[in-house]
Amino acid sequence: METKIAIQGIKGSFHHQVAQEYFHQNVAVNECLSFEALVDNLLHDKSQLAVMAIENSIAGSIIPNYALIDKNELHITGEYYLDIIQNLMVLNGQKLSEIQEVHSHPMALLQCMDFLKKHPKIKLVEDKDTAETARRIHQKQIKGIAAIASKAAAALYDLTIIAPEIQTVNNNMTRFFIISKDAGDLPKEEINKASLKFELDDTPGSLATVLNVMTNCKLNLTKIQSMPIIETPFQYSFFVDVVFEKYKHYEKAMKVLAIMTNHFKVLGEYKNGKL
Amino acid sequence: METKIAIQGIKGSFHHQVAQEYFHQNVAVNECLSFEALVDNLLHDKSQLAVMAIENSIAGSIIPNYALIDKNELHITGEYYLDIIQNLMVLNGQKLSEIQEVHSHPMALLQCMDFLKKHPKIKLVEDKDTAETARRIHQKQIKGIAAIASKAAAALYDLTIIAPEIQTVNNNMTRFFIISKDAGDLPKEEINKASLKFELDDTPGSLATVLNVMTNCKLNLTKIQSMPIIETPFQYSFFVDVVFEKYKHYEKAMKVLAIMTNHFKVLGEYKNGKL
Repeated sequence: METKIAIQGIKGSFHHQVAQEYFHQNVAVNECLSFEALVDNLLHDKSQLAVMAIENSIAGSIIPNYALIDKNELHITGEYYLDIIQNLMVLNGQKLSEIQEVHSHPMALLQCMDFLKKHPKIKLVEDKDTAETARRIHQKQIKGIAAIASKAAAALYDLTIIAPEIQTVNNNMTRFFIISKDAGDLPKEEINKASLKFELDDTPGSLATVLNVMTNCKLNLTKIQSMPIIETPFQYSFFVDVVFEKYKHYEKAMKVLAIMTNHFKVLGEYKNGKL
Repeated sequence: METKIAIQGIKGSFHHQVAQEYFHQNVAVNECLSFEALVDNLLHDKSQLAVMAIENSIAGSIIPNYALIDKNELHITGEYYLDIIQNLMVLNGQKLSEIQEVHSHPMALLQCMDFLKKHPKIKLVEDKDTAETARRIHQKQIKGIAAIASKAAAALYDLTIIAPEIQTVNNNMTRFFIISKDAGDLPKEEINKASLKFELDDTPGSLATVLNVMTNCKLNLTKIQSMPIIETPFQYSFFVDVVFEKYKHYEKAMKVLAIMTNHFKVLGEYKNGKL
């Protein structure tokens, strides 16, 4: 059976681009219109793997996605960093001066705020998805409205890019997880990164002690997020990513952390996607 | 001159509720339609203070708001925790069975997902603001559409609550900052919490060392978020909140951290809003 990859959004979205670059150009995808739908698609075996955005350098983590992975006992089996390049696109033949509105996802609008501020006559309208707006402009041949989306979306939906690369920051990396119902089957020698979750009591120095263990075991922290535990005041949960050179060092640290912390859980072990 | 408070959203919003509870019931507010507009309002002296949501227990931090405070050299002068209670409201006389769509902010929809899943016939439509939807239903006397918003919004815009307290989690605290162009004038004895920002090189154990200093100086960490620094790979910035009993302990730690970290900055010193 052909492997199918669930993506958030439609073809031409950044999730689609990640699926193509992580797997291969012609990978079969299932378009899902929300992250919840993406997870459902995986849980019901309609897809074997899913691509899920998890954080970007401007807006930080998409915390609800961590909750979706955690709650549904999914596994992170890989990660991929994509440099997000946004473009302003319109129906062929339209000019910038004819555009009254730009429709896009709030995050994309935020990413292009400096460009958009220079064009105060163009009204910003929040939309669900970047690629979906591009498709609608094409399908309904809508004039006067621009989309902000990827180059791939412009090609796929036959639109003209009237302003390329309009994102404010030129190094706007978004990190994506590859997730699965099952743990990955990567050989231990290739694993050099892991995502962990644990809880700590609100005692002074409890986190410092945990980080000292990691340092002693030669793990390096690449990310840390604390989250108040909703039902339990003064308890905190932590989402932590670590990188390491030797799997045995990591294994040792995990044994210690499982004793030192509450509800310790490995969300995934995978290969560092950062070059 | 009367003190004016900038709020994100319109009257009846949760920001409005915070302004009323933190200051007083009849506080004068400036309605701002985005967080960027909120900050502009403050920078142009149209308001003396602003109320800004910063994190909630479901979705985590609103990281771009940290960037807004940091970039514009604003000061956090207070914090307030509000228990978010969401209600489904409609035009007077309408019944639940007559509702085809519910319009609300994506965050509010997320908070009420369990309730909404039980009513799959009601289509979810993302909107900019919770209270604004309530106002529009009232102004245009729209039938068949429900809003999810606060009790105050239902009262203000004369709507009927057909399903009260529909949020999934019953302890959905949202934390708000009170921000200002100037540092607060709270006496040192009353200050027991601070928000800090600093950067660290990607060397093993660098964060553990910083946390050890905090522990030694009797500061307790209540929040930590790492953020990759966009322009500088392998450098991380950290947003950290600490609580303490004695200001002099805090002062000592700050002196050490200013030496040990890069671009050390106090975003605000204030009174712990958590009971």
